[in-house]
Amino acid sequence: MSHTIKDKLPLILRAKRIQGQVQALVRALEEERDCSDVLQLMSAARGAMNSLMAELLEGHIRSHVLSGRQKPTAQQVVAADEVIDMVKSYLK
Amino acid sequence: MSHTIKDKLPLILRAKRIQGQVQALVRALEEERDCSDVLQLMSAARGAMNSLMAELLEGHIRSHVLSGRQKPTAQQVVAADEVIDMVKSYLK
Amino acid sequence: MSHTIKDKLPLILRAKRIQGQVQALVRALEEERDCSDVLQLMSAARGAMNSLMAELLEGHIRSHVLSGRQKPTAQQVVAADEVIDMVKSYLK
Amino acid sequence: MSHTIKDKLPLILRAKRIQGQVQALVRALEEERDCSDVLQLMSAARGAMNSLMAELLEGHIRSHVLSGRQKPTAQQVVAADEVIDMVKSYLK
Repeated sequence: MSHTIKDKLPLILRAKRIQGQVQALVRALEEERDCSDVLQLMSAARGAMNSLMAELLEGHIRSHVLSGRQKPTAQQVVAADEVIDMVKSYLK
Repeated sequence: MSHTIKDKLPLILRAKRIQGQVQALVRALEEERDCSDVLQLMSAARGAMNSLMAELLEGHIRSHVLSGRQKPTAQQVVAADEVIDMVKSYLK
Repeated sequence: MSHTIKDKLPLILRAKRIQGQVQALVRALEEERDCSDVLQLMSAARGAMNSLMAELLEGHIRSHVLSGRQKPTAQQVVAADEVIDMVKSYLK
Repeated sequence: MSHTIKDKLPLILRAKRIQGQVQALVRALEEERDCSDVLQLMSAARGAMNSLMAELLEGHIRSHVLSGRQKPTAQQVVAADEVIDMVKSYLK
């Protein structure tokens, strides 16, 4: 993953937070908590996952699709922004 | 969560498997693994989460929306099946 | 569709608006309009469709899953509200 | 939209088919058809829309994000394929 450590740290922290959310979900299921509570925990974890997924896809598009031997043109950057905006709106 | 232990065990196992998948994702980010590998792990975890979410929603609809003081009518069961089918197809 | 005319009119108007949006999309493709414009039209039509879908599912849950021979209990109504909230958030 | 006429024709035909599907939905609502029938029509139109959206996004990524002054590298093409695969799986 060709990101600098500065870039990657927030991603790791977000992934760890999701790990905690899934752990809370496992516990809620084991403790036979209310179905509504379980659904709420599940839904929060899923939302956090979608938003991390969108972030990772954005990084992949910017670092690996857009950047080749040469700097991308302004039009390519605009087109990438449009794709990223749509991907983010689907993964909300 | 008013499911019997028999019902809940597979849900707990699935939630634990997702926990493992998120753990693998954290590790992949920490080890600066390839962006494609990270995306693949993320995508698998997200898919498993969506499918568990669909399962929990189905249980919620059948146990808590459909079942009140009286047995639901055949038409209510059919309508619930339709809703569940659609929810499942969105969460694939 | 067992809704009164009053209930159904806004749904028909929304479906007709979507028809107009899809028509605009067809025209944009035929006129070889900019790819970004086409995507924007497509995305708006898709959003409107998702939101109408959520509305129809809500109506189906309230009128056909929840309502049988007897009035649903307060707990059933709460559970239905939870399902509807989640379906709406997925279809945003 | 910088696609050749050969490329664009199938997209126009698909958009027109969606237009027909939305028209059928409007009619079903006006004729007070069964709620299940309405949902089925809505769901089919939405699926067709999602799949057309995925197609347009793929075209946008290949023609506008990937292609600048220079031919993209093999790695860029692979990365684009990965993004496209994921976008397609979300829009199914």
